[in-house]
Amino acid sequence: MDVGFLGLGRMGRPMALALARAGHRVRVWNRSAEAAEALRAEGVEPVASAAEAFRGDAAVTMLADDAALRSVIVEGGILDQPERPGLHLGMSTISVALARDLAALHERAGVPYVSAPVFGRPDVAAAGNLNIVAAGPEAAIARAQPLLDAMGARTWPFGPDPARANAVKLAGNFMIVAAVEAMGEAAAFGEAHGVDAAALLELLTGTIFAAPVYKNYGGAIAAGRYEPPGFGLALGAKDIRLVLAAGEAAQVAMPLASVLRDGLIEAAAQGHGEKDLAALALVSARRRGRG
Amino acid sequence: MDVGFLGLGRMGRPMALALARAGHRVRVWNRSAEAAEALRAEGVEPVASAAEAFRGDAAVTMLADDAALRSVIVEGGILDQPERPGLHLGMSTISVALARDLAALHERAGVPYVSAPVFGRPDVAAAGNLNIVAAGPEAAIARAQPLLDAMGARTWPFGPDPARANAVKLAGNFMIVAAVEAMGEAAAFGEAHGVDAAALLELLTGTIFAAPVYKNYGGAIAAGRYEPPGFGLALGAKDIRLVLAAGEAAQVAMPLASVLRDGLIEAAAQGHGEKDLAALALVSARRRGRG
Amino acid sequence: MDVGFLGLGRMGRPMALALARAGHRVRVWNRSAEAAEALRAEGVEPVASAAEAFRGDAAVTMLADDAALRSVIVEGGILDQPERPGLHLGMSTISVALARDLAALHERAGVPYVSAPVFGRPDVAAAGNLNIVAAGPEAAIARAQPLLDAMGARTWPFGPDPARANAVKLAGNFMIVAAVEAMGEAAAFGEAHGVDAAALLELLTGTIFAAPVYKNYGGAIAAGRYEPPGFGLALGAKDIRLVLAAGEAAQVAMPLASVLRDGLIEAAAQGHGEKDLAALALVSARRRGRG
Amino acid sequence: MDVGFLGLGRMGRPMALALARAGHRVRVWNRSAEAAEALRAEGVEPVASAAEAFRGDAAVTMLADDAALRSVIVEGGILDQPERPGLHLGMSTISVALARDLAALHERAGVPYVSAPVFGRPDVAAAGNLNIVAAGPEAAIARAQPLLDAMGARTWPFGPDPARANAVKLAGNFMIVAAVEAMGEAAAFGEAHGVDAAALLELLTGTIFAAPVYKNYGGAIAAGRYEPPGFGLALGAKDIRLVLAAGEAAQVAMPLASVLRDGLIEAAAQGHGEKDLAALALVSARRRGRG
Repeated sequence: MDVGFLGLGRMGRPMALALARAGHRVRVWNRSAEAAEALRAEGVEPVASAAEAFRGDAAVTMLADDAALRSVIVEGGILDQPERPGLHLGMSTISVALARDLAALHERAGVPYVSAPVFGRPDVAAAGNLNIVAAGPEAAIARAQPLLDAMGARTWPFGPDPARANAVKLAGNFMIVAAVEAMGEAAAFGEAHGVDAAALLELLTGTIFAAPVYKNYGGAIAAGRYEPPGFGLALGAKDIRLVLAAGEAAQVAMPLASVLRDGLIEAAAQGHGEKDLAALALVSARRRGRG
Repeated sequence: MDVGFLGLGRMGRPMALALARAGHRVRVWNRSAEAAEALRAEGVEPVASAAEAFRGDAAVTMLADDAALRSVIVEGGILDQPERPGLHLGMSTISVALARDLAALHERAGVPYVSAPVFGRPDVAAAGNLNIVAAGPEAAIARAQPLLDAMGARTWPFGPDPARANAVKLAGNFMIVAAVEAMGEAAAFGEAHGVDAAALLELLTGTIFAAPVYKNYGGAIAAGRYEPPGFGLALGAKDIRLVLAAGEAAQVAMPLASVLRDGLIEAAAQGHGEKDLAALALVSARRRGRG
Repeated sequence: MDVGFLGLGRMGRPMALALARAGHRVRVWNRSAEAAEALRAEGVEPVASAAEAFRGDAAVTMLADDAALRSVIVEGGILDQPERPGLHLGMSTISVALARDLAALHERAGVPYVSAPVFGRPDVAAAGNLNIVAAGPEAAIARAQPLLDAMGARTWPFGPDPARANAVKLAGNFMIVAAVEAMGEAAAFGEAHGVDAAALLELLTGTIFAAPVYKNYGGAIAAGRYEPPGFGLALGAKDIRLVLAAGEAAQVAMPLASVLRDGLIEAAAQGHGEKDLAALALVSARRRGRG
Repeated sequence: MDVGFLGLGRMGRPMALALARAGHRVRVWNRSAEAAEALRAEGVEPVASAAEAFRGDAAVTMLADDAALRSVIVEGGILDQPERPGLHLGMSTISVALARDLAALHERAGVPYVSAPVFGRPDVAAAGNLNIVAAGPEAAIARAQPLLDAMGARTWPFGPDPARANAVKLAGNFMIVAAVEAMGEAAAFGEAHGVDAAALLELLTGTIFAAPVYKNYGGAIAAGRYEPPGFGLALGAKDIRLVLAAGEAAQVAMPLASVLRDGLIEAAAQGHGEKDLAALALVSARRRGRG
């Protein structure tokens, strides 16, 4: 397929390359052009503008956040240009509200819109092993399947309403941050009782909590390794903000999410915003007078 | 070895049988004698009193809670009887405070005391695959190793202070309840956005959260299957109470544990105390006006 | 003075009339014109557009929320019209962020801007007894003083930065909702122990908590009187949202405010959004299985 | 009346003297005898043992906590001595559970028991102006009335079940700590926006929150005056613990109380346990990286 790919950040880059590797023609665009140029040797074609990327059989967006997506897709008028893509695969982690707006705008413009946020970190993306949550018109998802298969190990369908995929993605990220907070409190609790936190986390994340999220963040907490960030604490805070906003709009009280919000704010106030999400554990340590 | 086993509840029974299966002589005692008699055919010897069980090479206790252990071990004066066990393997989930008291009492009585609470449910105990957290005098743990090996897949040592093993066990149970609350809020969040909660939980517990705790409780929540209880909600509430009490004594603020406490109280007030811990998810549903 | 007054809601109306009563010429505008016409008999002059009201010695805005103020002042281009007021007294309860934007926009337009939100309910406004929090250029506040004196019992100055007055107002409203939640939980706690909640609240709000906020909301909770709303629950929820947003932007963790947020969402989900803020107490009652 | 008074702490002393001033014969006992001797010059009679004080027309207890009351009244066997008081006025702040135990024990012993905890600080007690919450047998309260009138400005009756008075007292102390936390968060919020916290608290505690609790603690927070303690932070923590325990037993979820608990633990961990309850505000400040 002929695919335009917009957004070559830490996730977008390996995803675009996975598409190229699978034999698709991939035209790439990025706000700062160097990121696109740097990929030329790897079999993708840099294009000069978002508009040039947003056409062909499909356009894929993997932009940083709501603001970036609004700026490129909504405010740029890109949906009104004469040449438009056969479908738009929106893979960014964005708000439920923006996903709804996008669904309506695309419907008006006649461009099929599929929300397809992903679970997995850059190395998983590089291996083409992401888990992809997809929601949107059935026919559009079917047409996008070769692309989804190139980027992901599995596609998880969630029906025709694109915003649902974003709700699922946010719910998952909420659960990730919850797991980190739980490990942070457990580690502080253990240490206050003379227990070696690394040993405690090794036990738990090696047995009843032997899942990628726990192993990853538990290992970082055990090692006190908060830099460089894999998934940044400030990004986690942004996602919890999106969860709480969507929850409030849908009248869902989420007291655990509120605790996460407070902890993330405290972490940022204490200078950990640029570190890995695992640094949330530093808040629990400091509450008991450590650190 | 010649082992006395006290407490034949849902966990104690398969653990005692695992010891017998491994070739140990196992004398069993239970508050209600029928539970002991019922096991006679399976190769263990019922004895008439706790005192008769509390002797031999080792005594193992797997009693319900602090009150049961205090009643049998502390108040009964069993530690002062002439014949005493070579070591006491305390495997119940009890408070850090009681573990400290027991350590001191045993030291005075000259009976080596090893705290060895376990992770795993009855079916895991039946297979002899528990994860056992052990803390106490090194020599005593070494002597107990054949027993630990018969009951568990692995022993995780946490040093000479018995109370540390209990702190680890409580930290683990805290993380379990936290995971259930996170799934409950995520499910309510998803449903409020039109997402099928079962599909959401299947995705998450099959990928980045693919660990026993998530699969077990996530499956129950997805199926709305809250009875019969595997791990009862009231027991979870008790454990969170122990976590918070130990945390307060050690000056560890645990806001996530507090949220769990509030949710568990609410669940009990709404009649779910006798259901499985997974029923905590019903509170999130009811908060948004469902159920 | 010649004053334009924009916004004749439950608070704006008595405030405009207080100005007229003090001898000022008051031109009034309201989105729905009937509200303005209805006041003609009381000595104020309805004008046809916001632009006609936004001129003279001073313009006072008392609009519903951020959206209303943005629509009338920012998006309408009213600050760029040739005839502009000698100063703008912004008395609405709005976000800190919008207050900052307004301060910048007015500075650019050369119109002195004073933020002057108020404490007090409609009957207090009718008596000209509001407590007014004022922040802005010192000279502008001085010129506005006759207007502030007509509407309020006292003006509380908070320096030259308008947004500070809004932060103070939001902090106060946060404390109000906190007091209501505290009374709701105390009432539920009392009732669960067989205590008559009305008697409990009468005691406490008549002695160590003998302040207007407690008497007002405590009386409503004691009487189970949630309608008609004095200060609506949905408005309280909006204010807590503004508090949390400003707190997050300024990196202030506010766990008590988070609890309020969760309770207000739960109240709304259970159908109490249009009732008085006192209805927040119904959530505490329902949590224990009542109501 | 002939009154025995047990417990001459910061509250007990002025209360005993108020009784003497009103013309009653007051025999006083205190664990450390010097406190009793020191009052001899003020018209009360020190006695040598709790048993000697616990007789006469009435005995009043104003002991530190559950442990002290249990030790003196329950474990000492004082209720079984031949000479017993005409009634027992229990004025300490104790748990609901102990109040229930005491009611049962007194009923068995045939000594009328009235729970009568108080609101008011030492200076209020010295002026005989306490607010007294009284619950117990109607006839006993009637007989105690002259004593209650000597110590208090007003008696608030709560029926025949003594434990209800304790529930009311705990509810009130919960509301006090909640008010302190609210002011602490509001102050941190204000300061993060450049607002002078003292001015903010002066405004709010002088107007819509003009009640003794707010003026007292708000003044301390505004002045950063945390020592000497009026009402100690560790005592506040104890009371919140009693509130949460009683709430849990009665199946009342109290999320605001949980937030207070977490904050108080954090305050103690950071070394503020011996300061005034107002020092809870230091936690909010530290969370944003200050202090």
